[in-house]
Amino acid sequence: MPNPTAAMLVIGDEILSGRTRDSNMHYLAQELTKIGVSLTEVRMVVDDTDAIVDAVNALRAQYDTVVTSGGIGPTHDDITADAIAQAFGAHIDIRDDARALLAAHYERQGSEFNAARQRMARIPDGATLIDNPVSIAPGFTMENVHVMAGVPSVFQAMVASVLPHITGGAPLLSQSLRINRGEGDIAGPLGDLAAAFPDLSIGSYPFVRDGVFGANIVIRGTDAGQVDAAMTRLAGLFPGDCA
Amino acid sequence: MPNPTAAMLVIGDEILSGRTRDSNMHYLAQELTKIGVSLTEVRMVVDDTDAIVDAVNALRAQYDTVVTSGGIGPTHDDITADAIAQAFGAHIDIRDDARALLAAHYERQGSEFNAARQRMARIPDGATLIDNPVSIAPGFTMENVHVMAGVPSVFQAMVASVLPHITGGAPLLSQSLRINRGEGDIAGPLGDLAAAFPDLSIGSYPFVRDGVFGANIVIRGTDAGQVDAAMTRLAGLFPGDCA
Repeated sequence: MPNPTAAMLVIGDEILSGRTRDSNMHYLAQELTKIGVSLTEVRMVVDDTDAIVDAVNALRAQYDTVVTSGGIGPTHDDITADAIAQAFGAHIDIRDDARALLAAHYERQGSEFNAARQRMARIPDGATLIDNPVSIAPGFTMENVHVMAGVPSVFQAMVASVLPHITGGAPLLSQSLRINRGEGDIAGPLGDLAAAFPDLSIGSYPFVRDGVFGANIVIRGTDAGQVDAAMTRLAGLFPGDCA
Repeated sequence: MPNPTAAMLVIGDEILSGRTRDSNMHYLAQELTKIGVSLTEVRMVVDDTDAIVDAVNALRAQYDTVVTSGGIGPTHDDITADAIAQAFGAHIDIRDDARALLAAHYERQGSEFNAARQRMARIPDGATLIDNPVSIAPGFTMENVHVMAGVPSVFQAMVASVLPHITGGAPLLSQSLRINRGEGDIAGPLGDLAAAFPDLSIGSYPFVRDGVFGANIVIRGTDAGQVDAAMTRLAGLFPGDCA
């Protein structure tokens, strides 16, 4: 049985303008891989309602799980919650449960629970809240779509809250070998190896380091015996050039 | 007139599994922003022909320019060139011009120009080659789609080859200010500022640093006078909390 699939939607002008380097995608990819969920597609869009609606509707129809990051804060450019509501055709307003969480938090802090902060309690009808131990303002889950913050520390805390509720698959085992030969030398024997182990995924990831060409060969699969057997055969192909 | 738009398609299992952290997207975003092209959408897909074909066809119809990275090497998992040909309904085979470049290179190196390396001369009919000063194997341009390697040093060299041929727009000017206050305090006055300068893009990018909440406010626009005026007004809003 193939593993469950997931997609991610990264929302934010700051990523696409090159101002900020996204790190949430890489983090999520690693966390999903650990539990046997295949992150199969990622989209990154600007802060534009139509772009968010179109992307989330395309992804939630195609993949088992969708995770979004960004755009759920209190400022005028935070439009994700309303866009998600629109994508689902759901009503959205300040919801009592989210409001209560935030009101208590700002009272403890001695900060004013002003209109901007109340915006963070806008949650679509039918969604369940995602816990945010870092800064309280919750994310939310709408069917198979998990809506999370973009600030990495908050995103990671929300992933931790949600992961136990995502159905995983067989853990993907992975072994890799660095070969200090150009891919052109490796490709023929590697193709034969891939053909001999059709249930494994064998990838070649080239690099140039100090002017030397090489490749990291990664063998992935759910059967430990097969991964071991393929790796043993790979190591025998270029015995003098492995690291 | 709005600036020209671009999209990027990142191809590769290694990115989506979390094994490799993509850096090409961030690089391209910065280069495009410099010449006034708006990178508006990014998609990342696994090494799967249908996924590549669907994504490239969706993106090339919607944006002025599309850049792809990854999957044009000599190994069995390098399927991008054939997928691009399929997306355009174009014939693909080893092409004489690309073959000649590679044959000369491997002769100089004293390496065998074997079947795997000849695969890198597979170029769709109608495409023009993109120069690769790093490792010779060319990328190619098919209408508005620029197909480039995934290895960052090669990708960057190919971007440098192609950028002069991409029509730019008005350079986007950007100024930013760090405010050491939570977004909830900033949001109200910032929303008023955004409303007062409808031609500018004003973004708020929150952070948590050493337990302190703050936000970087970025003001972007093509009119230097407006950007200056908005920034002056912003700096006056929270005089004690700016850095």
